[in-house]
Amino acid sequence: MIITLTTDFGFSDHFVGVMKGVILSIAPAAQIVDLCHGVPAHDILAGALSLEAGYGYFPHGTIHVAVVDPGVGSARAAIAVRTEHYHFVAPDNGLLDLVLQSETPQKIVQLTNPQYQLASVSSTFHGRDIFSPAAAHIAAGVPIEQMGEPIDELTQLKTPAPKIAGDAMEIHVLMADRFGNLITDLTRAAFERWNPAGRCVRFQWGGTEINGISRTYADVSCGAPLAYFGSSGRLEIAINKCRAADQINAPAGSAILVRIL
Amino acid sequence: MIITLTTDFGFSDHFVGVMKGVILSIAPAAQIVDLCHGVPAHDILAGALSLEAGYGYFPHGTIHVAVVDPGVGSARAAIAVRTEHYHFVAPDNGLLDLVLQSETPQKIVQLTNPQYQLASVSSTFHGRDIFSPAAAHIAAGVPIEQMGEPIDELTQLKTPAPKIAGDAMEIHVLMADRFGNLITDLTRAAFERWNPAGRCVRFQWGGTEINGISRTYADVSCGAPLAYFGSSGRLEIAINKCRAADQINAPAGSAILVRIL
Amino acid sequence: MIITLTTDFGFSDHFVGVMKGVILSIAPAAQIVDLCHGVPAHDILAGALSLEAGYGYFPHGTIHVAVVDPGVGSARAAIAVRTEHYHFVAPDNGLLDLVLQSETPQKIVQLTNPQYQLASVSSTFHGRDIFSPAAAHIAAGVPIEQMGEPIDELTQLKTPAPKIAGDAMEIHVLMADRFGNLITDLTRAAFERWNPAGRCVRFQWGGTEINGISRTYADVSCGAPLAYFGSSGRLEIAINKCRAADQINAPAGSAILVRIL
Repeated sequence: MIITLTTDFGFSDHFVGVMKGVILSIAPAAQIVDLCHGVPAHDILAGALSLEAGYGYFPHGTIHVAVVDPGVGSARAAIAVRTEHYHFVAPDNGLLDLVLQSETPQKIVQLTNPQYQLASVSSTFHGRDIFSPAAAHIAAGVPIEQMGEPIDELTQLKTPAPKIAGDAMEIHVLMADRFGNLITDLTRAAFERWNPAGRCVRFQWGGTEINGISRTYADVSCGAPLAYFGSSGRLEIAINKCRAADQINAPAGSAILVRIL
Repeated sequence: MIITLTTDFGFSDHFVGVMKGVILSIAPAAQIVDLCHGVPAHDILAGALSLEAGYGYFPHGTIHVAVVDPGVGSARAAIAVRTEHYHFVAPDNGLLDLVLQSETPQKIVQLTNPQYQLASVSSTFHGRDIFSPAAAHIAAGVPIEQMGEPIDELTQLKTPAPKIAGDAMEIHVLMADRFGNLITDLTRAAFERWNPAGRCVRFQWGGTEINGISRTYADVSCGAPLAYFGSSGRLEIAINKCRAADQINAPAGSAILVRIL
Repeated sequence: MIITLTTDFGFSDHFVGVMKGVILSIAPAAQIVDLCHGVPAHDILAGALSLEAGYGYFPHGTIHVAVVDPGVGSARAAIAVRTEHYHFVAPDNGLLDLVLQSETPQKIVQLTNPQYQLASVSSTFHGRDIFSPAAAHIAAGVPIEQMGEPIDELTQLKTPAPKIAGDAMEIHVLMADRFGNLITDLTRAAFERWNPAGRCVRFQWGGTEINGISRTYADVSCGAPLAYFGSSGRLEIAINKCRAADQINAPAGSAILVRIL
């Protein structure tokens, strides 16, 4: 059984390693895969985007654990969710929001049963004490129904969303990836609903303009900006062979105007 | 059989990957887990703290390899240690010191038998040439007694320690973790011996004061400093939702005054 | 079957995790090992050096996947190579050049057969859509002959090379590793061909001189520079217990003069 881990723990400390020790102590046959540990500290939206981009490439049956948890130790719930093909284990703070727009929950429980937690639960490291044990017990065959009471409503994530005004749309930068490419809140599906005829568009912010949507970096000359639908299905802004995030002043939340020509 | 790796090699080079290749060549069934590779370069104390925080969460029988080894190629010994529940493989430079305060060695040997090293041993990468092969051979069932001569005395790690003067105590910052939380040399056990009645305490350094010990970050308001016992049992100083290490000028070795009120 | 991954994807995003999901969906029994993901973005030479330093420490039969791919989505080919002991899967951009100086290709094919790619191939993430599936299918027993047409000529990597002029030689810095050690284009083999009698040499650049070749860091005093043959067989310049790359102004491409005394 595969268990993936997505956290903001980075690799500079022992946190991720300890989660693996806990999992393997409970479920020795689990196959643990790091989905992403470079989520910026406390950035729930970035964590949600990583999960969204990655979870579906894993075999059915995979258990996805996500821990970006600035409210650890407070009243926020710890949850496990079963969908048709996967399990998800996370704090209830919006981290699963994007994923659960594609995957319909069959069951959601609050992880309150101490039988499926470490004997001593800290107030600062539920990744070790609650989330890892829960995932390991799921891998070992325990139904989530045994792990706590069912709940129906989850905390929503506050995310920017494109604003449409006729032939114009305001979209927003969500984050920059490792290559400095800027990822936006415009999905290919939303774009095609807005522009079903596939008419040419222009992107504009500050003094910069991009005309049209490229297929890949090499479609423009070295150092030129481009807009394209990235590998996770969202519109991205990049500069061929450079880091757009360093050259374009567009931090998370920045608006970009899109106009049908 | 699980083999964990703790090093200061980071992930920017091939060093860790090569260790895994060596291990899997000797012990194909070994299950390798990264405990931590983000130990600051040459920082033996930080490596010792990572090991201390993590080793005990792994199943009995696990082999823990640690390589923070500024003296590689010099006269410092390479050692393997067997305790009741684990094996440890490391340079003899203090890296195992904190762990061996909790785990009593049953046997310590110096890794001198070339039969359990790579055919060609470099002077700069014993993680590959000596420590990985030793761990893999242990995983494959070789008793450490065959790997070299027994030794009794290990190199001690020079670590700061709390200084008690009646109702006051001077404690020290050991390192900052990924979230900028400052980890100190005060363990919960030492604190409770000093303050068995659990009377209220004040922490003080520079112009900053913290009154009392919190349970978790969310116990104080956003941006406020707090002191709490972290997930590895040591007192930590943090700022809720910020990086204490960036806002408080308290590098490793800095003193903090604790006073019973 | 072991599959190693060497990329410039880093660990801050989901890219590496997603590759593993794709591989495990096709070849559930594959054992995936990260060889190196810290190759600087788009730095094909650094990727080639990581592969060269690491591939040979893995068991025969290992499949090495390398993705440093600034030309993704352009006309550059995707290839699989079978040698006596290994398979290699990579873009045809020079990334395999150093490895294939030691390993003779028995077969090279262009990865064009859509049967061994994901159903939908993006223009920006062939690591996920083409290279990972190819490696997984090789692990599952598919001969590379079925994956596309054979080709003979591969793209060459433009690398600096030592220039010999009698008793003097100009060598070049290729990159700095995690410890700030500078790795050069001078291999031990080339050095011994040039200086078969092992006469003493002097290294010189800017105002700095190093006399002789050391065995390990501790051979010189703390803070002193040294030249030595590193663990991957190349001459390196380091400063004992410091980061040479920070103290010596010698970016990639910098020349160092070597002279037989």
